[in-house]
Amino acid sequence: MAKKYTYFFSKQKTEVPDVENIKFVLGGKGASLVQMTKLGVPVPPGFVISIDACDYFYKNDRKYPEGLMDTIDENIKELEEITGKKFGSKVNPLLVSVRSGAAVSMPGMMDTVLNLGLNEDSIEGLIKQSGNERFAWDSYRRFIQMYGNVVMGMEHSHFENILDEVKGKKGVQNDVDLDVDDLKEVVKKYKALYKKEIGEEFPDDPKKQLKNGIDAVFKSWNNPRAIAYRRINKIAPEVIGTAVNVQSMVFGNLGDNSGTGVAFTRNPSTGEKKYYGEYLMKAQGEDVVAGIRTPNHLEDMAEQLPDVYKELTAVFDLLEKHYKDMMDIEFTIENGELFILQSRQGKRTGMAAVKIAVDLVKEKMLTQKEAILRVEPQSLDQLLHPMIDPSAEKKEIAKGLPASPGAGCGQIVFTAEDAMEWAKDKKQVILVRLETSPEDIEGMNVAQGILTGRGGMTSHAAVVARGMGRCCVAGCSGVSINEDVKIVKLENGDILKEGDWITIDGSNGVVYEGKVPTVEPSISGDFAKLMSWADKARKLEVRTNADTPKDAKVAREFGAEGIGLTRTEHMFFKEDRIFAVRQMILSDTKEQRVKALAKIEKMQQSDFEGIFKEMEGLPVTIRLLDPPLHEFLPHEDDELRELAGEMGVEFEELRAKRDSLAEFNPMLGFRGCRLGMVYPEITEMQVRAIINAAIAVAKKGLKVEPEIEVPFVSHVKELAFLKDVITNTAEECLSKSKTKVEYKVAAMLELPRSCVITEQLAEYVQLFSFGTNDLTQTTFGYSRDDAGKFIGKYIENGILTEDPFQTLDTEGVGELMKMALKKAKSVNKKIKLGICGEHGGEPKSIEFCHKIGMDFVSCSPYRVPIARLAAAQAAVKPKK
Amino acid sequence: MAKKYTYFFSKQKTEVPDVENIKFVLGGKGASLVQMTKLGVPVPPGFVISIDACDYFYKNDRKYPEGLMDTIDENIKELEEITGKKFGSKVNPLLVSVRSGAAVSMPGMMDTVLNLGLNEDSIEGLIKQSGNERFAWDSYRRFIQMYGNVVMGMEHSHFENILDEVKGKKGVQNDVDLDVDDLKEVVKKYKALYKKEIGEEFPDDPKKQLKNGIDAVFKSWNNPRAIAYRRINKIAPEVIGTAVNVQSMVFGNLGDNSGTGVAFTRNPSTGEKKYYGEYLMKAQGEDVVAGIRTPNHLEDMAEQLPDVYKELTAVFDLLEKHYKDMMDIEFTIENGELFILQSRQGKRTGMAAVKIAVDLVKEKMLTQKEAILRVEPQSLDQLLHPMIDPSAEKKEIAKGLPASPGAGCGQIVFTAEDAMEWAKDKKQVILVRLETSPEDIEGMNVAQGILTGRGGMTSHAAVVARGMGRCCVAGCSGVSINEDVKIVKLENGDILKEGDWITIDGSNGVVYEGKVPTVEPSISGDFAKLMSWADKARKLEVRTNADTPKDAKVAREFGAEGIGLTRTEHMFFKEDRIFAVRQMILSDTKEQRVKALAKIEKMQQSDFEGIFKEMEGLPVTIRLLDPPLHEFLPHEDDELRELAGEMGVEFEELRAKRDSLAEFNPMLGFRGCRLGMVYPEITEMQVRAIINAAIAVAKKGLKVEPEIEVPFVSHVKELAFLKDVITNTAEECLSKSKTKVEYKVAAMLELPRSCVITEQLAEYVQLFSFGTNDLTQTTFGYSRDDAGKFIGKYIENGILTEDPFQTLDTEGVGELMKMALKKAKSVNKKIKLGICGEHGGEPKSIEFCHKIGMDFVSCSPYRVPIARLAAAQAAVKPKK
Repeated sequence: MAKKYTYFFSKQKTEVPDVENIKFVLGGKGASLVQMTKLGVPVPPGFVISIDACDYFYKNDRKYPEGLMDTIDENIKELEEITGKKFGSKVNPLLVSVRSGAAVSMPGMMDTVLNLGLNEDSIEGLIKQSGNERFAWDSYRRFIQMYGNVVMGMEHSHFENILDEVKGKKGVQNDVDLDVDDLKEVVKKYKALYKKEIGEEFPDDPKKQLKNGIDAVFKSWNNPRAIAYRRINKIAPEVIGTAVNVQSMVFGNLGDNSGTGVAFTRNPSTGEKKYYGEYLMKAQGEDVVAGIRTPNHLEDMAEQLPDVYKELTAVFDLLEKHYKDMMDIEFTIENGELFILQSRQGKRTGMAAVKIAVDLVKEKMLTQKEAILRVEPQSLDQLLHPMIDPSAEKKEIAKGLPASPGAGCGQIVFTAEDAMEWAKDKKQVILVRLETSPEDIEGMNVAQGILTGRGGMTSHAAVVARGMGRCCVAGCSGVSINEDVKIVKLENGDILKEGDWITIDGSNGVVYEGKVPTVEPSISGDFAKLMSWADKARKLEVRTNADTPKDAKVAREFGAEGIGLTRTEHMFFKEDRIFAVRQMILSDTKEQRVKALAKIEKMQQSDFEGIFKEMEGLPVTIRLLDPPLHEFLPHEDDELRELAGEMGVEFEELRAKRDSLAEFNPMLGFRGCRLGMVYPEITEMQVRAIINAAIAVAKKGLKVEPEIEVPFVSHVKELAFLKDVITNTAEECLSKSKTKVEYKVAAMLELPRSCVITEQLAEYVQLFSFGTNDLTQTTFGYSRDDAGKFIGKYIENGILTEDPFQTLDTEGVGELMKMALKKAKSVNKKIKLGICGEHGGEPKSIEFCHKIGMDFVSCSPYRVPIARLAAAQAAVKPKK
Repeated sequence: MAKKYTYFFSKQKTEVPDVENIKFVLGGKGASLVQMTKLGVPVPPGFVISIDACDYFYKNDRKYPEGLMDTIDENIKELEEITGKKFGSKVNPLLVSVRSGAAVSMPGMMDTVLNLGLNEDSIEGLIKQSGNERFAWDSYRRFIQMYGNVVMGMEHSHFENILDEVKGKKGVQNDVDLDVDDLKEVVKKYKALYKKEIGEEFPDDPKKQLKNGIDAVFKSWNNPRAIAYRRINKIAPEVIGTAVNVQSMVFGNLGDNSGTGVAFTRNPSTGEKKYYGEYLMKAQGEDVVAGIRTPNHLEDMAEQLPDVYKELTAVFDLLEKHYKDMMDIEFTIENGELFILQSRQGKRTGMAAVKIAVDLVKEKMLTQKEAILRVEPQSLDQLLHPMIDPSAEKKEIAKGLPASPGAGCGQIVFTAEDAMEWAKDKKQVILVRLETSPEDIEGMNVAQGILTGRGGMTSHAAVVARGMGRCCVAGCSGVSINEDVKIVKLENGDILKEGDWITIDGSNGVVYEGKVPTVEPSISGDFAKLMSWADKARKLEVRTNADTPKDAKVAREFGAEGIGLTRTEHMFFKEDRIFAVRQMILSDTKEQRVKALAKIEKMQQSDFEGIFKEMEGLPVTIRLLDPPLHEFLPHEDDELRELAGEMGVEFEELRAKRDSLAEFNPMLGFRGCRLGMVYPEITEMQVRAIINAAIAVAKKGLKVEPEIEVPFVSHVKELAFLKDVITNTAEECLSKSKTKVEYKVAAMLELPRSCVITEQLAEYVQLFSFGTNDLTQTTFGYSRDDAGKFIGKYIENGILTEDPFQTLDTEGVGELMKMALKKAKSVNKKIKLGICGEHGGEPKSIEFCHKIGMDFVSCSPYRVPIARLAAAQAAVKPKK
């Protein structure tokens, strides 16, 4: 038996494919048309040519499956019977639209032909049908142009030239000023152009038009922009083609009783359960979109066309009930008769997504688990940061990368020092830098936002800003930033100076002139409810990366169940201690080092006390010093000279020391646990600070759970040695204080070798944390700071489908993680494993962590809710 | 039954432990004493206390096994019976030596006590025995001093002070000027000192002396220098202690008919089959070593003491026959009676090792396979480079690391440009640099040797020099090199200037003043023979890393079976093309790049033609451009300014371009196949040059086997893309030329990710080569250029037993290699895998490659014979 390639839909007869998900046969649009028809929704009748036909077309040298053309003829015949119209009829012509529709929405990427079926005969019929001669001739003119361009590949401009010529001759500016005769002339000229370019007459036969139209839609599946769209939107190669929807035309511009509109079944901005939409009478769909006339609010229809309104809202309710979601619906009213042209799940803001999901549970349409899957975790981000007031007037002056969400408004400063200085005077500042370095952290912290000229989504500025929840626009390469003379030159040549006000939106990367008002987010009760469902569902523990009591507090409010990563190095940069840190680094002897470390110890201890207090009763993983020491030294000779003065040593000597610390590849250099191996006194100081802080807090009756983490381990003997240092130091502190504090020892897995020998390491620790940033760097051999030179190109060319620094590379890095996890658990079933790289807050990566049986993820405070929801989705999602 | 802890040896009775290798019970020295006695060699009788006793001692709180002391007493009794001497006898006293002896030789690291048994009584006996009162008192004096120092831990200097005091009083300078009375006074004062420091009388009881002596030897196993020695010499922890050898003393200084000597059964320098040794009459062992008197050649003994000589040489022959090797023997003649005190396999030069191994096969003592195992592969190095004339007078002025073997003599120059300039004038130069960079390669190539102030054994200078077979002393940190003013300041303050002559020895890292004559190596027929046996035995193919026809020629002469790695980037630095290379790099558009590449193409082609000719009939793997592009640009602004002038562009523009190419971590940056991914035109140029070169050579009737290798692959799509570029380009060249050339496509495995996804990559290539340098860097997270900051400390502290850049880390990197190998072969059984990092020429790493089933190793030309032998040893060695 021949395979079925067409599916008819009409009030009288609807064919539904017998498969689980009809979208993969009929495409998204076709599925909705068939489904709606089935539900009794008034949809103009038509038929769908299946995606399989398109697949066949590409696999068989652009031929149709045998018999398909006959079947199409039969469908047309049936359509003619049902509508009482006829292809090419002078009296009551059947006109159809031919539209693409893949399984995945690819808006505007593929081709559409409208008004197909018009010819010298049916134009007369259309005049009769519509009673509007100009409308009919304009439709014919448009059809020829669309057909010539879309189906035959003629240049759009060639048609426009003719139109301009006729308008010029008549001395008018606009299309609407052409009358019937003018349009007839245009049609004539169009046909002549067609003959000249194509070498044959414009086809009068509607069946020929139809065949060519279907061909064109099939071919448009592989036009360059469609291919690009699929690549950019990471549409899987399993999505193999487009269906073709052939549907009888309806017109919203036939007369006073006709119209067209779009509507949402609930408010897509707020989620409020209230119909929301607009319509225009005497108009076609494109008129609404084009915004030439101001459309009416949907509510007005209740008075203007009460019957239609009633029918329409009944359709809304019907569709919501069927799809169990807020729907986005396009409709047309033709001579008072309602037709639904399209329906799909409506796009919505994060806030609306949450409210709708929670409401649908209240309305018993969804279970809690289904509701969890309805909110894109990423969209919660909108709920967690200040936003640009959508109603505010604003002028865009530059655009960079949306590196850290939220909006910020302040006066431009060019150095971290200035930022701190101005902030002390209660000024709001935006820190503008070519790029940031660890020295800038304090300045970043006091700024309302950060704007950088260089660097990508994972640049220092971006990573640190996200960690702080500070908004950031990075890599704003269109502007030129001169830190020396303190100016920003915009692309249009305008200059911004220190002190000028700007507003940046880290959610979309836009920079605005002056002060744009921002609005604070409100976390509604629905949000909390959804999160509570998510917490019930998820298996993964969600921790946070937090370096300060403030971060810890925010994260805890956002639901963090502990700290998965405290980076102690950020503390080293604080103004009151960086001098001692530098003294320590530049020491020649252990004695000098110990002396400088003693100055830092008390301050570190008080940092930790603050964090422990905020995280009372929850575990806190503190990573020992990680970055190469030279990161703490001034890069510029001027600063270094100043430091030499303060330290009372010769500048030359200090410079030689700094230069000797410089590295060719600092990422692979003298850092991580290697520091503690060579200078155990640093580790000892940090462990004392941690344990003594824990003791101090415990003495106040609070519960503390410190976990001391060794970074950048590659050899078991490193861990063995440092575990000794840690336990010896800790036990000494504890026995001195006569207080009991339980502490754990942990290690980072961030080097391929540590994943190969995890079973050896597992004997020394109770917890492992994958540092997937570094692990990605070493597994791929990509330096995060340098990969920008080719990674963009790689993604563009489809070599990489995603940036592995944003979404975990499950095939390579993930494989090493699975190996490590298996090895670790084989030695110690109780050992906990988690992830604390940037990936810890990325939904796909979180899903992977869930799948391979990890115990926790840790992410920046502002991503905690996202991670909670993503972890829940991973747990709830049906397994494939 | 109690465990046996002592083993007696004498002509009458010898106890041999019933184990496979008696060394692990008796220690090396004990085993040889027992074995020699068993063979009938005249060894002074005695007994061995086993290593197990030492092990027991350490495991049981420094106690002896039960009954051991009794057994020792029995052994002493037996010794007294056999020798007719008696402990403490006034007439015929038994004196013994107590010496350490572990399973592995640790010369001078542990303790020895001689003349044990002397006291107020036996001194009289010794006088009678020897007829030499002064000798007896001097022996007594020495014994007290040795016992006090070694056994009781008294300061050596305290005894020396007394000796000086007595000499001072008498007004003499030397010990020999003290007479019997003086010595008696010294003994008295020594005893008083002993009493004062130890709190008891010097022990008269020989048994107490013995017990304490044995204790001291046991304890010396764990003295700091012994521990350090074991760590430094990587002695496995399975070697658990020292045996104690208690042996009756014999004296070579009793009279005219006594003497002592050392001998080798063959010449240890040349391997010549001729007894070789020295002896001194009326002397003790230490006199020979101290070099106070000039010893006689062994041949003289044939006339002087014909009977002893006959007996001695008979022992030589006997021991050689037994041990099937050249032996190193210590002997003493006591009143005309020969005693053998020690025998062991003799240390020898590489040349001697080869000759002896081959001769022993000729003499039917060894099989070919046994002979293969007899030569340390590393020692062949000595046969392949010019050497400092051993007889030349020379003055050492500095010492660095022995970075690349061989000796070189020349005038100092400080820049690569000067080196080339001077070389053009036929001057011999030594290139002296703080450190070298790829720009210096041409200069290094024309120099006689390279001396650097910084960097380790795997620094750029070291690696490149070894690759070139140029000698190099690296990291000579004692001197201070000032390249600007062109001087070297030595540690003693002396200054060397440009043009001064120096000689460097890259085999030991020594720098000599002035011109020291060097001798060229000669590869004897024996060497060739041994190599032919090795070639028969080995399974691994041995290829070479060669970038020039000259290297290829040398390597082929050394037995390379093809090229495993040709680095094309070295060619880019040649004077005639670096300008075009820089133009290419600094191009803004593809057109400019293609234009610059066209200039390089012809030159590259002729490079390849030269290599193909030299390697006729053998495979040649050519790696596509690998290093980051900025390596080709001038680092200094002055040079860049010059380049800007030559290129006719603005300096500022060029500098901006160069700065934009700079990277934070170039090792993980825009390099390897990433270059070809972004600029496929570079790959196309290189492929055209390779294939057209192959065509040109093939047209001359020579067989060429090019293998085009893609470096630094981390993702399968990179390989898929570049394989397309390679095959398309190659096919185009081949079809144009109408010539048939078989070529292969290969890929480097040098990133962890490539080892995780090797099964994906294997579909695209016929050959894989592990780049273990980069793989070690990324697996450990060690930058080779920076790891010096901690790797030394790691090895010192035993965190690492070996530098993983020198000896493959089998546990981590090796595990990834095994994984990759398995994955590759699972997809394609015929696929070839090899290794082409520095490890390809290192014997232990080669053994690992053999074990895991690799197909080839590739190493620098001068290591090819080493690799051939090491591969053979790996194949021949008995499996554990």
